[in-house]
Amino acid sequence: VKTFNNGSDPIALWHEAYPALWRATVGAPEELTPFGAAAGSPNTAALADLPEAEFPFAADEVRSRRVHGKLHLAFPLGPDEEIYGMGLTYRNLNQLHQVKNLRMGHYNGQEDGRTHAPMAFYISSAGYGVLLNTARRVQVYVGTTHPREAPPPLQDRLQPSWRPTQPGRTVDLYLDTPGVEILILGGPAMLDVVRRYNLLCGGGCLPPKWGLGFWHRAHIAASAQECVDLVDHYREQEIPLSVLGLEPGWHSGCYPCTHDWRPSLFPEPRRFIADLAARQVRVNLWQNLFIHPDCALGEALAPYCCSHTGSWGGLIPDVTLPQAREVLQEHFKREHVDLGVSGYKHDEVDDEHWLFPLFATFPSGADAEELHSLLGLYVQRLSFELFRAVNRRTYGLVRGSNLGAAYLPYALYNDCYEHREYITGLCSASLGGLLWCPEARTSNSAEEWLRRIQAVCFAPLAMLNAWASDQMPWSFPEVAAAVREVIVLRHRLIPYLYSAFADYAFQGVPPIRAMLLEPGFSAQPVVGGAARRDLHGTDNPYAHPESRDVSDQFMFGASILVAPFFAGQAERRVLLPPGRWFDFYTGAEVVGPWHTVRSDLGPVPLFVKDGGIVPLLAEGEDLQAFIHWRSLEVRHYGEAEGVFCLYDDDGETFAYEQGDWSRVELSAQRDGSGRWRGVVTRLTSGERETLPLCDWRFM
Amino acid sequence: VKTFNNGSDPIALWHEAYPALWRATVGAPEELTPFGAAAGSPNTAALADLPEAEFPFAADEVRSRRVHGKLHLAFPLGPDEEIYGMGLTYRNLNQLHQVKNLRMGHYNGQEDGRTHAPMAFYISSAGYGVLLNTARRVQVYVGTTHPREAPPPLQDRLQPSWRPTQPGRTVDLYLDTPGVEILILGGPAMLDVVRRYNLLCGGGCLPPKWGLGFWHRAHIAASAQECVDLVDHYREQEIPLSVLGLEPGWHSGCYPCTHDWRPSLFPEPRRFIADLAARQVRVNLWQNLFIHPDCALGEALAPYCCSHTGSWGGLIPDVTLPQAREVLQEHFKREHVDLGVSGYKHDEVDDEHWLFPLFATFPSGADAEELHSLLGLYVQRLSFELFRAVNRRTYGLVRGSNLGAAYLPYALYNDCYEHREYITGLCSASLGGLLWCPEARTSNSAEEWLRRIQAVCFAPLAMLNAWASDQMPWSFPEVAAAVREVIVLRHRLIPYLYSAFADYAFQGVPPIRAMLLEPGFSAQPVVGGAARRDLHGTDNPYAHPESRDVSDQFMFGASILVAPFFAGQAERRVLLPPGRWFDFYTGAEVVGPWHTVRSDLGPVPLFVKDGGIVPLLAEGEDLQAFIHWRSLEVRHYGEAEGVFCLYDDDGETFAYEQGDWSRVELSAQRDGSGRWRGVVTRLTSGERETLPLCDWRFM
Repeated sequence: VKTFNNGSDPIALWHEAYPALWRATVGAPEELTPFGAAAGSPNTAALADLPEAEFPFAADEVRSRRVHGKLHLAFPLGPDEEIYGMGLTYRNLNQLHQVKNLRMGHYNGQEDGRTHAPMAFYISSAGYGVLLNTARRVQVYVGTTHPREAPPPLQDRLQPSWRPTQPGRTVDLYLDTPGVEILILGGPAMLDVVRRYNLLCGGGCLPPKWGLGFWHRAHIAASAQECVDLVDHYREQEIPLSVLGLEPGWHSGCYPCTHDWRPSLFPEPRRFIADLAARQVRVNLWQNLFIHPDCALGEALAPYCCSHTGSWGGLIPDVTLPQAREVLQEHFKREHVDLGVSGYKHDEVDDEHWLFPLFATFPSGADAEELHSLLGLYVQRLSFELFRAVNRRTYGLVRGSNLGAAYLPYALYNDCYEHREYITGLCSASLGGLLWCPEARTSNSAEEWLRRIQAVCFAPLAMLNAWASDQMPWSFPEVAAAVREVIVLRHRLIPYLYSAFADYAFQGVPPIRAMLLEPGFSAQPVVGGAARRDLHGTDNPYAHPESRDVSDQFMFGASILVAPFFAGQAERRVLLPPGRWFDFYTGAEVVGPWHTVRSDLGPVPLFVKDGGIVPLLAEGEDLQAFIHWRSLEVRHYGEAEGVFCLYDDDGETFAYEQGDWSRVELSAQRDGSGRWRGVVTRLTSGERETLPLCDWRFM
Repeated sequence: VKTFNNGSDPIALWHEAYPALWRATVGAPEELTPFGAAAGSPNTAALADLPEAEFPFAADEVRSRRVHGKLHLAFPLGPDEEIYGMGLTYRNLNQLHQVKNLRMGHYNGQEDGRTHAPMAFYISSAGYGVLLNTARRVQVYVGTTHPREAPPPLQDRLQPSWRPTQPGRTVDLYLDTPGVEILILGGPAMLDVVRRYNLLCGGGCLPPKWGLGFWHRAHIAASAQECVDLVDHYREQEIPLSVLGLEPGWHSGCYPCTHDWRPSLFPEPRRFIADLAARQVRVNLWQNLFIHPDCALGEALAPYCCSHTGSWGGLIPDVTLPQAREVLQEHFKREHVDLGVSGYKHDEVDDEHWLFPLFATFPSGADAEELHSLLGLYVQRLSFELFRAVNRRTYGLVRGSNLGAAYLPYALYNDCYEHREYITGLCSASLGGLLWCPEARTSNSAEEWLRRIQAVCFAPLAMLNAWASDQMPWSFPEVAAAVREVIVLRHRLIPYLYSAFADYAFQGVPPIRAMLLEPGFSAQPVVGGAARRDLHGTDNPYAHPESRDVSDQFMFGASILVAPFFAGQAERRVLLPPGRWFDFYTGAEVVGPWHTVRSDLGPVPLFVKDGGIVPLLAEGEDLQAFIHWRSLEVRHYGEAEGVFCLYDDDGETFAYEQGDWSRVELSAQRDGSGRWRGVVTRLTSGERETLPLCDWRFM
């Protein structure tokens, strides 16, 4: 065990808890923490398999002190380092030069630290991560502070060399807590840091196979019959549908919510769920934690609730209390899960306006600030545990999350609906064990509709949320065929994506990733704001500088790069990582590093790495049936030989944890005469070993 | 003395410190406070002259308690009350249903409490004000919280009657402090509350007359000769100019700043200032508190500075220390004031990104959070005191302010440059003893240029800030005549405006005011966001509700209503308060309450109350000479008789405080035959009594 004694300050000994993952505490850490709330079990074996890495700092470089009654931690920042992470961000990935107050709340167009997943966890381009396991709001200064004894070089503003930004040499974190646990995660690559983090959480989640199909959320006031009709319309349109989501109207009372079925809309919920199951469609239930006081659940929860109701008079359970969680779980199990409900959309665990004020109190004694940070984690965990107990996997949505959540099968979403921000959200999520759903709701034009649906089909959760719009995939006739095409493609890609999720679960590799996690990828950051010297009288002349990274394209699984179009774009540029790249549709090579692609309401631009292998459900395979891949189309791209490790299991249960799974190696090789051949090899590590029929296509 | 004992909680006895102005303390208030930093002297006599008012609450309705180690105060909120204030706001005046974290900082397009004047002071439409004299960040919930024992009525979202907003019955304030002083200000009208507040600060400021003329800030790199040429260009264009502002380049080193003159641009500053004075133009100096360490000022301040430098390596003086203020004052006096400089623009006292972090420490022991809140107040006070000591009035700008500042002659500004927000800023400023300058910087079109200049000519400080753009009033030839016309009108209106400022100084009436302070004015609030029941899939369906008030028009002095046009508007609506209203230019009556005015690059729409009297400098009067009004054009509008109390003094010194001032009554009366005549009457209260020559115009 490697330890450092950081002499003069109160940081305790650094302890190497796992290989290249160091822990220390400062002061007396509080009882409630994000990792404690998430309660995942670290994947010790996989953590041990990661590359070795050195402790990134010298022994005395991390400083800690108490100032103004609060805790100030300073970590070194090298002159060439870029800093990423800090939870879900929507405008930028690079956090250098930012000042943030990390806190749970509805992102509202301002990147100041208020977000749906505020995480005191950053990743350095130098290949390490720093994490504070705290439920407190954290003020963060990323290279903006200058102690008087080490000031930045002096300049004169009238000289052309003057720059408004003088990078500081520390990342400072400042929080009001008696103590905190600090983790340092080694690399050496940024992807290794991310993997270490995910494995510490317990590995990434492995959704059920059906969760990776297409989702539709019905109108808020839709009845059971209207939902069945809707599913039948999807069939008529030959669009595969996996999950139907019910919005608030299914509750017998909503805002506040009873969590009981509304008889006028869903008179026979068990039969309704069975009707949909017969059509291979699962039911997901919207819910929030504003509990109606006058219903079975409200009465049972009454002893365990907050001093304040939410905006709509709902009781807010103290989910840090096991008793409160048990009441919720019992009700959810009896009224939903046992009837066949597949999962939840946990709404509104984030916004301080509708929830409780910071001065609210809870029976457990938890501080409202802490509970505000952790509500999303607790609700994910309690519903996950519920399904786990009946050996059914779940997949759902949640509007607030935090550290430790990687293993919990929920995608985040918000109400901002800015398409570019949604794609940046996809990227930033991958830096912190999060999944993001850039849901399509409605659009102002057929073009935008197509672009929205195309992008969401390459997200962890592909969903049309028609709760208010009642929009259908085919609502814009001029793009209906293209919309159908990309939804079908999403379904056909499930074997490929499911293997990517297996890598997430067992190796910690995010299935959908920011480009900056790709080896060798680097973009000259587009520097905005005050890093320019030009004088701007009307633009904010002191706009905080931002190093803008490439966040409008991302990696999807092992080898596909997605560069979605945005409405109004006639063409766009794609920055290809080193190596050769090929068009997904034609197999034609594209030339990088910057490749320009033009749009004509065409398909979403997809590029595949040289040697990339992409297994798809075979055309004609029942797209709704997810029990083991029977026949696949396997595409190989480019000139290099390639290997794809295809993961499979029952797709529904936790049997894979008992060894009931298979891995098959799909390998594209050249024979002696240079001709391609596909080789399918059983891997022996798992018990279940079925060999799919493979239709090889060498693109 | 009226007292209330708020039994069960730690609020001390309410003490009626001034008539209808009650004080109480909770716990042990901290040493540093906004009122302490501003250090004004309440105008006791004028406070005693205000209307009587009752304590607005029942004895036990104000509640206070310590929760999670912090202080929670709850004030009652009636079902029909609207809440205004909370310092400078840019989007909305009504604060009902808002959750804010009031803190000093650069407003950046989000109305969440971060602003250039974050003030824990609100005014109720029921006619009272509540104020916390604190330098701490304050979390405020305006009617959004619901104690469990008093929940809002239950609803069902599927019913058409459902509303997302259920008003709470308290305004809650939550802050981390050992104690705080609370003030309750009586009305009965909202204007009375505002006046009481202003008089408590010491009365509003009375700028020198020249301060009310037109200002131009020169390009950052302009030399003395270029500045003189610029002033001569104004003369050639026959545009009156009062003040020339120098931007950072005048410092021998800037960012960080030496506060010494740059010899290459200003070799003979005393002569330069005299050259401008000969042209009746004053010099204003830009400065910030990032002090260059290697200069006379930096060396002298070294013992009194912050633990951290600002972003550019500048020392940040601990302005809570008298020693630091004295060093600054001595330097400013010797190097600027004694040379004839007229005042300052105090920049960048607001933004936490460029200033010090919250964990910085100061030699006085002040907390960085406190100093961040108070920096703007201290710098206003120290420069005001400097000019006061030499018996010269000053007028300037500052980018951050706080409670207690009404008597300090500084206008606020920011870098956002959104024209509508700038006009809302004009209105919100008037609710908290603040002045706002919607400075014109540059424009994308001649139309916008005209609209910008027109609006700023009806602001407390009328300024073109060409620091980056080098724009001139005549830069757009197609509107040059109209631009000149409005600047000339601004100058001619100085007697009218100066009397309005006298009312501000002696009676506490804001010279430029939000409409809601006008008697009888009421607008059906335009309710946005979640107060609608319609479902929005893409707009935020839970947008926080806002009651939007009329904030795109405002009162200018006693009787003029200004309704500025914004670029792109072909017409606009004006909401006229009760009574008859007349066009300023033609005297024609306009019909209210909603009047529509059309635009064709015409003059700014101005309307005058029935009986309104507007004194203007006579045409031909030297617009640059401000020593006593010699000849005036006096306009009377409408059918009612009217009176205007014209205030005059030397316009330059504090002699008015010793009685060296005059008031003259300008009265429009009908004679026996119904014909109008103008009567000029000496009022006896002051020693100086000059009678201007009046050219009466009955419009």
